[in-house]
Amino acid sequence: MKTPLTLDPDRLFPVEPHVRDIARDLYASVADEPIISPHGHVDPRLLLDNEPFSDAANLFLTYDHYVFRLLNSAGVDLHELGVGKSDPVDPRAAWRIFCRNWRLFDGTSSGYWLTHELVTLFGIDCEPSEETADEIFDVIQAKLAQPEFRPRALFDSFPISFLATTDDPLDTLEHHAALAKDPSFSGRVVPTWRPDAYVNARKPEFRARVEALTASVNVPVDSVKGYLEALRASRARFIEHGAVSADFGVAHPLTVDLDDAELELLYRKAVNGSLNPSEADAFEGAMLLRFAGMSVDDGLVMTIHPGVFRNHHTESFANFGADTGHDIPVATEFTKALRPMLDKYGSNRDLHVVLFTLDETVYSREIAPLAGFYPSVFIGAPWWFIDAPDAIGRFRAATTETAGFSRASGFIDDTRAFLSIPARHDMSRRVDSSFLARYVAQGRLTLAAAEHWIKQLTVDQPKKVFKID
Amino acid sequence: MKTPLTLDPDRLFPVEPHVRDIARDLYASVADEPIISPHGHVDPRLLLDNEPFSDAANLFLTYDHYVFRLLNSAGVDLHELGVGKSDPVDPRAAWRIFCRNWRLFDGTSSGYWLTHELVTLFGIDCEPSEETADEIFDVIQAKLAQPEFRPRALFDSFPISFLATTDDPLDTLEHHAALAKDPSFSGRVVPTWRPDAYVNARKPEFRARVEALTASVNVPVDSVKGYLEALRASRARFIEHGAVSADFGVAHPLTVDLDDAELELLYRKAVNGSLNPSEADAFEGAMLLRFAGMSVDDGLVMTIHPGVFRNHHTESFANFGADTGHDIPVATEFTKALRPMLDKYGSNRDLHVVLFTLDETVYSREIAPLAGFYPSVFIGAPWWFIDAPDAIGRFRAATTETAGFSRASGFIDDTRAFLSIPARHDMSRRVDSSFLARYVAQGRLTLAAAEHWIKQLTVDQPKKVFKID
Amino acid sequence: MKTPLTLDPDRLFPVEPHVRDIARDLYASVADEPIISPHGHVDPRLLLDNEPFSDAANLFLTYDHYVFRLLNSAGVDLHELGVGKSDPVDPRAAWRIFCRNWRLFDGTSSGYWLTHELVTLFGIDCEPSEETADEIFDVIQAKLAQPEFRPRALFDSFPISFLATTDDPLDTLEHHAALAKDPSFSGRVVPTWRPDAYVNARKPEFRARVEALTASVNVPVDSVKGYLEALRASRARFIEHGAVSADFGVAHPLTVDLDDAELELLYRKAVNGSLNPSEADAFEGAMLLRFAGMSVDDGLVMTIHPGVFRNHHTESFANFGADTGHDIPVATEFTKALRPMLDKYGSNRDLHVVLFTLDETVYSREIAPLAGFYPSVFIGAPWWFIDAPDAIGRFRAATTETAGFSRASGFIDDTRAFLSIPARHDMSRRVDSSFLARYVAQGRLTLAAAEHWIKQLTVDQPKKVFKID
Repeated sequence: MKTPLTLDPDRLFPVEPHVRDIARDLYASVADEPIISPHGHVDPRLLLDNEPFSDAANLFLTYDHYVFRLLNSAGVDLHELGVGKSDPVDPRAAWRIFCRNWRLFDGTSSGYWLTHELVTLFGIDCEPSEETADEIFDVIQAKLAQPEFRPRALFDSFPISFLATTDDPLDTLEHHAALAKDPSFSGRVVPTWRPDAYVNARKPEFRARVEALTASVNVPVDSVKGYLEALRASRARFIEHGAVSADFGVAHPLTVDLDDAELELLYRKAVNGSLNPSEADAFEGAMLLRFAGMSVDDGLVMTIHPGVFRNHHTESFANFGADTGHDIPVATEFTKALRPMLDKYGSNRDLHVVLFTLDETVYSREIAPLAGFYPSVFIGAPWWFIDAPDAIGRFRAATTETAGFSRASGFIDDTRAFLSIPARHDMSRRVDSSFLARYVAQGRLTLAAAEHWIKQLTVDQPKKVFKID
Repeated sequence: MKTPLTLDPDRLFPVEPHVRDIARDLYASVADEPIISPHGHVDPRLLLDNEPFSDAANLFLTYDHYVFRLLNSAGVDLHELGVGKSDPVDPRAAWRIFCRNWRLFDGTSSGYWLTHELVTLFGIDCEPSEETADEIFDVIQAKLAQPEFRPRALFDSFPISFLATTDDPLDTLEHHAALAKDPSFSGRVVPTWRPDAYVNARKPEFRARVEALTASVNVPVDSVKGYLEALRASRARFIEHGAVSADFGVAHPLTVDLDDAELELLYRKAVNGSLNPSEADAFEGAMLLRFAGMSVDDGLVMTIHPGVFRNHHTESFANFGADTGHDIPVATEFTKALRPMLDKYGSNRDLHVVLFTLDETVYSREIAPLAGFYPSVFIGAPWWFIDAPDAIGRFRAATTETAGFSRASGFIDDTRAFLSIPARHDMSRRVDSSFLARYVAQGRLTLAAAEHWIKQLTVDQPKKVFKID
Repeated sequence: MKTPLTLDPDRLFPVEPHVRDIARDLYASVADEPIISPHGHVDPRLLLDNEPFSDAANLFLTYDHYVFRLLNSAGVDLHELGVGKSDPVDPRAAWRIFCRNWRLFDGTSSGYWLTHELVTLFGIDCEPSEETADEIFDVIQAKLAQPEFRPRALFDSFPISFLATTDDPLDTLEHHAALAKDPSFSGRVVPTWRPDAYVNARKPEFRARVEALTASVNVPVDSVKGYLEALRASRARFIEHGAVSADFGVAHPLTVDLDDAELELLYRKAVNGSLNPSEADAFEGAMLLRFAGMSVDDGLVMTIHPGVFRNHHTESFANFGADTGHDIPVATEFTKALRPMLDKYGSNRDLHVVLFTLDETVYSREIAPLAGFYPSVFIGAPWWFIDAPDAIGRFRAATTETAGFSRASGFIDDTRAFLSIPARHDMSRRVDSSFLARYVAQGRLTLAAAEHWIKQLTVDQPKKVFKID
């Protein structure tokens, strides 16, 4: 027996009928707004090449660590799914494994997004299961061959009005340039500058990266002046290609104010591989503060994504590589860590620093109080594991009473799963509408104010925070 | 076009009609109870002098760091509002800035309180905005000239039955004395003993303060015995003036049990300015434990308000002074920190220690378990950034299942904004009624028990916990 | 006037009528399922001896630290209740104290369970109070004399299908054996292996315990090889008696990967009492990792219950002993602490590690992300202070979006209060039904999926996670 797969038009709204009505109306006012995606991990070549997607497994499974990590927990061998460095697999076989395990995703944000995608994009009307796997695979395969399922057509139909990718400072940005020049594509796709590999001196590849970086602008590797100059030059190049932000995936949001001589000392040790762990922290913290200074100069918005223990499982890292489901959050501290940076630059109204966290405890304790004072600090939307309906509700409740709505970043999908972008933004609009509806129903907000803020949170706030004109 | 400003009589109640009905009835039973305010920051001279308030900006803006911090985050220069050490400003111009930015306060506790005050006290019926700023300013100005808007008249009309201020141990308490003697004022206004400046040896002013303290009772500054004697004498003097509690704004609630010789050693270093940071922590922790001992002797309730990084932004501190919006919370630990003190005095049934926190994670993990065992420990109501409807709901849900209602302090407004006192207590009564109503509706509490507890939480619990007769 | 004591048949369900209907139906589908209790603290002699319970105070009060801790906080002297090492007291007098203080338990999980027990087991229909204390005492006394109130009869009537006790590795397990052999009792009661006293070298009794352990298998005390052999032999003996799990009540879930020589070194110091505190941590952490290795070999499920500061109040410990209400939780870290163990054994699909916590912040931040990747990690149900309706709701909301339902342990009562077992499991079924009902009402879960998961969470998940066949 097949189980129907449907989408409730009132999904995620509050359960009380009167509040639901308010939420439904608020949502309706923004449901069709184009998507602004100021931070994510889509590969620009996807849109440049505009090749058809290959198959359902590739689309939903092989590259989505939210999905295959749960299959791993259920005992599926990731080699059978073709994850990471695995040998290629038969996509239909991988898809069957996924469909057989559909129940795992009940209640998860992945399950919610996948349902949205299967129903709205592919018209699937039965639940994935052992029995329906092949049929669904075939329906998707047939759709993918159609022109309206090419990446650019989807980009236009979602529709996406702004999409930022995430890129290495040495990236040539040739794909971004080619896409921008292509007269047949009018979408706006810009790079984001992410220098982690050039500041994390604990990584074995640090020296080689920094050598390449300094070589790119013909400065010697052993001078911090050259290193800083090369970083600035790379940022300038990104800005020429439309970049609006720089992203920092630090372990902790430590900032340290070092003068040039102190920084030079650490830099030399870093390049020589002789930093001890606390010096490596200090170097990274000093650079994070320097990057704030560069942002004051060149205007790039800073986004900070801290607090993840990367590659927790050595064997999985060896077998499959990075970003394969075993990055695990840790407790994170912002108040003391960011103080040197905010003390120096925090009152600068042109600096924008967006703070993301996987540690929900900091929303009411640290991030909302910081963003409610410093003109430069904005509250990043919930990210990764907590980019989910209940968690977003908790986030709004934890930040709004202290900082209101004006200090929030607006939604960021942060995804490499291109097809999930509309599902994620739609979820966010529904949850925000629901939150605002409750405040209206409880006499805490006028309906007019709620109508104002749902537009702001969906459209204006991300433009303002990310300086998108 | 003006937008109406109104107060929903059912504001903050649960949205489900049946539960709302229960909440409404519970609230009605305490809505008119006089206000007990056992901890706050109103200046006693306000009531002694009983001068008219000067204007709307002064009333709602210049002294309320909850309000001007959000304006600062929006890019307003605090000099334009006349904050702290700023030069005086035209209050009407400052008020216009505030009104223009009214949307910032949507959803915040400040916005909620301000609306309450504007509507109930001044009969304002349109939202603050660029357009309505002058009109509202004028209406308020006219009201402030009337006798019923003088501080004492407001005190009686709110009505407030008990108000504690917060005072320096060397305060002469002359204003309290004069007010108590004044036959034309029957309100009860008592001081609270707050010795932070005399135990925090990290502050440059420590030596001078301790010199003045010891001189006040003619004991030498270099003997800890004299120092302790001076502190005890100051407490006795406060008690004579009606004080019921002593307040401790420590960075962390560390307590350390030192014998007299060990304390003497640290004290001498403190007075000589030669404590290292960990010794400064130990001295403060040793004194916090000693203060518990003094409370056992003299009966003053201890309130502990820890976990704030004060004056986070050096430039703002230099420009505007302390308490100007850039105090930011940090994670706080109680279980281990308080152990020496509770191990020594925790089972004393005459000792009352009220624990406040800005770190919500400790409610279920540490404070409720401590208060559910030690007769001396009470759970402080949410404070400062988390003194807000959703946060108070989380607090009740996090503490009640472990410790019930009997271990809670009752509401404390902790405000320097005199006019916001009724709004805050009204909010608390509504949120507590809503919490109790849900438990009734879910069959977890009888209606009779809910009726008992809403009275207790509003009236009896603060009296019991703060030893107010 | 007596106040009626009743049980709302819809208690704990959501308040919105439509969602309540869904919850009620889900609950009905599992309300009568036999109880699986894979972790708890019932004494096997209770069932072996099958003596009548002595009286109401003994049943509900003297051994239940959830209950007498709140009485202690209200100023009751635990000696008057006969707690721990106290002299025996008149049970009727103790019961009167409890009844007089009934209001303390309003809103608490203990109050909820006690009401359930009084109504369903004893047919009490009036609230405990000064006035009703004697009457209730007498009704209970009369019932306890009846054969259907003997422990075995209650075991069968609850009904319990599986009950695990918690036992010392040197326990002879004679009571378990006798019970298993008894033809007149068909219930399944198995031991759980809990070696804390043999790995926590900070305790004065460590040396004596380890001597007894090694002597039990005739190996010398001074060789870690013998020690490990003795531990393995004890586990094997427990498995022969039906044990399915080993429990670890560590202060922190630290794991350390030491080779045999390194472990030997620490072990010798431990036995000689010469470990410093960080070595004691390392030894305990190394043993926790070794126990995972043993579980890989022998199949025992690991349950980890960390994060409690035991015996916080020295005087109460001296007067009454351990487990007398003054164990207080502390912040707990899992991501880094468990990494060595999970890096080594985490991908083993036969290893089951169930993580419990009293620090709710780790649910979304650490435990759900770990359990959503590692096949060996399961999310333990809320425990002790947070085994309560609102807290369980928070737990589900904090873990489901990341890890779904399949990684959850199912409910564990963890109680020494035998009569509270049905109340606790019933509570859990109601709260889980309510959570699932909300997801159904919000279009996040089909009704069929919710029906599937309520059965799984109640019956199949505990069997799967605890390897109960």
